[in-house]
Amino acid sequence: MNTLLLYWITGVLEAGRKGMDIVGASAIGLVCAAGGGTLRDLLLGRKVFWIADQTYLLVALLAAVMVYLLVRNVRLPPRLFLIPDAIGLALFSVSGTLIALHSGAPWLVAALMGVITGVLGGVLRDILCNDIPLIFLPGELYAVAATGGSLTVVILKALEFSQPVAACSGFVIALGLRAAGMFLQWRAPHWKPRE
Amino acid sequence: MNTLLLYWITGVLEAGRKGMDIVGASAIGLVCAAGGGTLRDLLLGRKVFWIADQTYLLVALLAAVMVYLLVRNVRLPPRLFLIPDAIGLALFSVSGTLIALHSGAPWLVAALMGVITGVLGGVLRDILCNDIPLIFLPGELYAVAATGGSLTVVILKALEFSQPVAACSGFVIALGLRAAGMFLQWRAPHWKPRE
Amino acid sequence: MNTLLLYWITGVLEAGRKGMDIVGASAIGLVCAAGGGTLRDLLLGRKVFWIADQTYLLVALLAAVMVYLLVRNVRLPPRLFLIPDAIGLALFSVSGTLIALHSGAPWLVAALMGVITGVLGGVLRDILCNDIPLIFLPGELYAVAATGGSLTVVILKALEFSQPVAACSGFVIALGLRAAGMFLQWRAPHWKPRE
Repeated sequence: MNTLLLYWITGVLEAGRKGMDIVGASAIGLVCAAGGGTLRDLLLGRKVFWIADQTYLLVALLAAVMVYLLVRNVRLPPRLFLIPDAIGLALFSVSGTLIALHSGAPWLVAALMGVITGVLGGVLRDILCNDIPLIFLPGELYAVAATGGSLTVVILKALEFSQPVAACSGFVIALGLRAAGMFLQWRAPHWKPRE
Repeated sequence: MNTLLLYWITGVLEAGRKGMDIVGASAIGLVCAAGGGTLRDLLLGRKVFWIADQTYLLVALLAAVMVYLLVRNVRLPPRLFLIPDAIGLALFSVSGTLIALHSGAPWLVAALMGVITGVLGGVLRDILCNDIPLIFLPGELYAVAATGGSLTVVILKALEFSQPVAACSGFVIALGLRAAGMFLQWRAPHWKPRE
Repeated sequence: MNTLLLYWITGVLEAGRKGMDIVGASAIGLVCAAGGGTLRDLLLGRKVFWIADQTYLLVALLAAVMVYLLVRNVRLPPRLFLIPDAIGLALFSVSGTLIALHSGAPWLVAALMGVITGVLGGVLRDILCNDIPLIFLPGELYAVAATGGSLTVVILKALEFSQPVAACSGFVIALGLRAAGMFLQWRAPHWKPRE
């Protein structure tokens, strides 16, 4: 729930910066906050979480309007939203993996669901706002962080660790990898493009 | 059904103007006409409407070929498709909301389904044709119109008005808002972008 | 299965050429290989094939890593991937049509499912890699080839031909049309764009 709000806010912030009106900003906030979880639920054949309980929608819409109105007259540093974005990425990867495991998905599918839940919202936000998706900036450790967090959860659960231990470890690994990519310039191995 | 055809035709027109061949134009017509309703049915867990009854597909494909052939040698004003697009937006918002209510969705979910059904087809058409989606032109009252129409239906149904009254009022509100955005320069409150 | 690998490889090749890291390349390979089939399964209400059996994911991920490492130091002709892409297009169109027919879809829906399965992976790959989707280059006979292959399967099955005959004929028609578009400059009728 709190994760949803975080992502929602990054969406509203970005949409506001692009000069969208309040309905457009709320819509992009919605896609950003709920996109990953919605695809996860469709793929797993579960009832979509915000249709099962519309409290999600209500709280998040109120939050979007408040953020939009509050922030409208404040000048914000352009990359401020990277911090809530990184926390949302880590929380969503962990929760997506756990939900998939609980609904009986095998381990590799569960890890992939974690990555999808963590990454998709941000990708959709960037596409709709016409930015280059963060995930495709070479070597920013965006998908790597989500993968690391999800795999940590899957492995610790397989080793019969308790759920809180697995979840917290996954969160720390995902956030740590993303932070290392942002601040320490850690990079995944990649292929230099040639001309 | 008639709504589908309207949207389908805006898709075929746009695709034709971009020099696509007849298969590409029919495909974009299909995405445009059926995209919103398909996502609505997937989210609600209903059987997708054009799989349940393929008559939709047959009639619409025939219409696409006829439009393509008829219009091929006629010079059209570039923004002609805005009129059927606005009518389709209003009709789809109302019908999407009603279908969601009938399948038991709570009110906020139903209103959101109306917006998705009304808006998604046009957004996909614009993305596939490489235009800027109408919905993201600041303040054009595109999503606002769909939201207004859907909420009108939800509220009138909650007040126990009959279905035709609710549907017609929603249609008039949605079309009126969109027309006011196009011709009277009505604008939703928005955030000026800063440099 | 083999088809999946083919498409997967075209995705990894393209992503590698764009300088993406190994996780990004695998992700794009995944979307490219599984995107069409996933949408087909969601629309038909079937269990998504790679959730039903995660062997697909395992084999394909191993293949992605191997391709990525092998090809990293080799200079490749830029349009090399057109050959596996065309084979994948033909195989996916045929298999998508057959799967839809087996799950009871009527003929036009089945043909459309074949086209979606064949075309969607490549479209998503091109969008994510920021290329113009091959399907939208005017007259390249991309969607036409998928449509031809799918309709061939549907018609031969309706005429009570055996499944292998229908499948092979569909494959030959689809591959032949695509090859004619690439090498013989065959073109579908299209509408010249006007200034």
